[in-house]
Amino acid sequence: MTDPTDPYLIISADCHAGLPAERYRPYLEAGNHRAFDDFLGQRDARRAVRARRGIRNETSALKWQEDNEEGLRGGWDAAQRAKELDGDGVAAEVVLPGTDPVDGGVAAPFGAGLDDPEGQDPELGMAGARAYNRWLAEFCATDPERHCGVAVLPLAGEVDEAVTEIHRARDSGLGALLIPATWAGGAPFHDRRYDPVWAAAAETAMPVLTHAGAAPRHEYGGHLGIELSEAAWWPARPLWFLLWSGAFERHPGLRFGVAGAGCWWLPNLLWQMDRLYLGAHGGKKHSPFAALKRSPHEYLDRQVFVCAAAPQRRELAQRYEIGVDNILWGSNFPHPEGTWPHTGEWLRRAFHDIPVGETRRMLGESAAEVFGFDKRRLAPLAQRIGPTPEALGQPRNQAPVEACWRRARETGRHWLTGFDFPFVGVGE
Amino acid sequence: MTDPTDPYLIISADCHAGLPAERYRPYLEAGNHRAFDDFLGQRDARRAVRARRGIRNETSALKWQEDNEEGLRGGWDAAQRAKELDGDGVAAEVVLPGTDPVDGGVAAPFGAGLDDPEGQDPELGMAGARAYNRWLAEFCATDPERHCGVAVLPLAGEVDEAVTEIHRARDSGLGALLIPATWAGGAPFHDRRYDPVWAAAAETAMPVLTHAGAAPRHEYGGHLGIELSEAAWWPARPLWFLLWSGAFERHPGLRFGVAGAGCWWLPNLLWQMDRLYLGAHGGKKHSPFAALKRSPHEYLDRQVFVCAAAPQRRELAQRYEIGVDNILWGSNFPHPEGTWPHTGEWLRRAFHDIPVGETRRMLGESAAEVFGFDKRRLAPLAQRIGPTPEALGQPRNQAPVEACWRRARETGRHWLTGFDFPFVGVGE
Repeated sequence: MTDPTDPYLIISADCHAGLPAERYRPYLEAGNHRAFDDFLGQRDARRAVRARRGIRNETSALKWQEDNEEGLRGGWDAAQRAKELDGDGVAAEVVLPGTDPVDGGVAAPFGAGLDDPEGQDPELGMAGARAYNRWLAEFCATDPERHCGVAVLPLAGEVDEAVTEIHRARDSGLGALLIPATWAGGAPFHDRRYDPVWAAAAETAMPVLTHAGAAPRHEYGGHLGIELSEAAWWPARPLWFLLWSGAFERHPGLRFGVAGAGCWWLPNLLWQMDRLYLGAHGGKKHSPFAALKRSPHEYLDRQVFVCAAAPQRRELAQRYEIGVDNILWGSNFPHPEGTWPHTGEWLRRAFHDIPVGETRRMLGESAAEVFGFDKRRLAPLAQRIGPTPEALGQPRNQAPVEACWRRARETGRHWLTGFDFPFVGVGE
Repeated sequence: MTDPTDPYLIISADCHAGLPAERYRPYLEAGNHRAFDDFLGQRDARRAVRARRGIRNETSALKWQEDNEEGLRGGWDAAQRAKELDGDGVAAEVVLPGTDPVDGGVAAPFGAGLDDPEGQDPELGMAGARAYNRWLAEFCATDPERHCGVAVLPLAGEVDEAVTEIHRARDSGLGALLIPATWAGGAPFHDRRYDPVWAAAAETAMPVLTHAGAAPRHEYGGHLGIELSEAAWWPARPLWFLLWSGAFERHPGLRFGVAGAGCWWLPNLLWQMDRLYLGAHGGKKHSPFAALKRSPHEYLDRQVFVCAAAPQRRELAQRYEIGVDNILWGSNFPHPEGTWPHTGEWLRRAFHDIPVGETRRMLGESAAEVFGFDKRRLAPLAQRIGPTPEALGQPRNQAPVEACWRRARETGRHWLTGFDFPFVGVGE
């Protein structure tokens, strides 16, 4: 697989799909149809809220939708989607809700999905999640090798009900779980009440994801800059709640990923958590961390990953601290801030000087392992549509490429390798 | 001042002072004495809470206190403090509350200080702040050139009262303001209700600080790792609330600093805020940021700083992104995680390969400008007690030192200089 002429197997670990809202009716239990009519009736009001927040700019939203009308149907139309993925060279994908962050017209019923669970009725939230999950299972079944569907899993209600939905979702063919990033007044994610959820996720081999979206918007006073400055923090936050409370120790089969939040925050977090645990600092006044049996970075490498939608060069340059294997690239299809419909160009810009072996890990191999894609069965498609290293501008002779990152690679996580700080840069 | 044999003028921008709790009685208004007795009566309960949180480890707390009994009296005894500062080579200091984070016995009345304002009675909070501020003014008056006292300024009550306290504190000789890091259910700091506070701070030339301490502890379930993993985020958070809401645009004289939270988080934040503003990403769907007239980094360089207590080598290596002039070194005296009583050794380890000119800025010159210390009048003391560059292991010939950081310096804030990522490292 390190033959530098072989096309890449590209798996996007952060894509979105969902029906235009009104079309979820057949997927809802009949008892929720009246509530669903109310939900649909508030669509304009929700759109107005997005406009006020500054998330929805009328002009650019319309332009994006007009320019990409056909492709955007790939948000719910499986045939159109296959065409868009082919065009982008993406052989397979992890499918999350939230197709339409601009307009909000394509949203799972009752706010199930990426929205904040704050104020959501737990029963309706779960009903909306089941409807979305039923549709998603159908959608993914059109080409199950290619689509790993992420079931929406609200946690505000009874834990038993969540566990039931995990098994139902697994049986229906879905492959991962999306929990809300925030607990909206409920028990924080360190709470042992969630143990049955983590256990069921491990048992069914369904990775648990958070995704950017939920946030305490009532605190922002409509300032979009505030909202975006901390948008990654909220979905990342459950990671340290799970880690320090020993959830990864108690559930070694649990895999946890943060999506839609980049990975720029991970080196600092890991550095701090490891230092705390290893007692290099703070040991003078702090008691030990009895819930953990190993260093934070060991749990990270064993059980945690990031679905990095369109990662920046700054983030890729820090991959030896993050862990190359922990970065799962995503196209963010069909979001306007993603790489679609110009993924090929985007990949060339981002990866041209990165070693081919590492690129293979980040673009697909790690995602295949985490989400259980069958690389062998995807191989013919990847051979047909995947870009070659040459197409990404990566030189046939990889020795100089490997050499120019050598110092960064060898320094790695500097607090473990004995250096004072990382080496971020190329060349000698 | 760049003579490499000249001793350093060292100003610690993050030190702590406060009386043993029971001794604040004479500084409180008589009407609050009964409430003060109740407050003192709950001291053991507060200590037990700290022990449960894991902040207070009986064995290490006692050992730290026994080993440093004499020096720790410098927390409130001006003569002892002068001796400790002299021994550390520190000519002047910025004095915050929270002398005793381990035991909590030395705390300002009614939780005024570094604690979370959550659940604090606004009137008692302000009364406690006034008492602390009165004592602090007396304390600093023992050597006003050397101590810049930071007045505690609760914001949960009436804004008028806060403005009155700003002027009272300034008239009493104090030089800066400590606001709570969190708004505890009140209006977030983007709110225009605080404009009179920012205006008074600018008018009196009192920099406004936050300091690590406040945090939503009720969410942590007693997991110290969770608490410490996000301890820096809460005091940093007001920075983006002020910035995006235009407070720095409306109050160009306002100076704002984050203390006790390191500065490792600043490069990522600045990179993201600038990118948002400059529209490199997100422009497709987000509206502009009308409250700002310039890029976030321009406000930062003009009005924002970090009081970096015992900054790590990792943080110093990122100083060209943070801005060398924005980093104000602090010893964190008398906290156990600070550099006291071994500041000389600590400085040598941290700064030995950093250019002398930059070291001078970070160790004292920037703090002198921000807090209005009189460098000329401090010069004789600095000459007597300050370490020389040679004592920090810095070579007489600075040309090779400058050269080995050249690439990092020239890359700087890479999103402004045209590089894909920062260069963190030395050598060519």
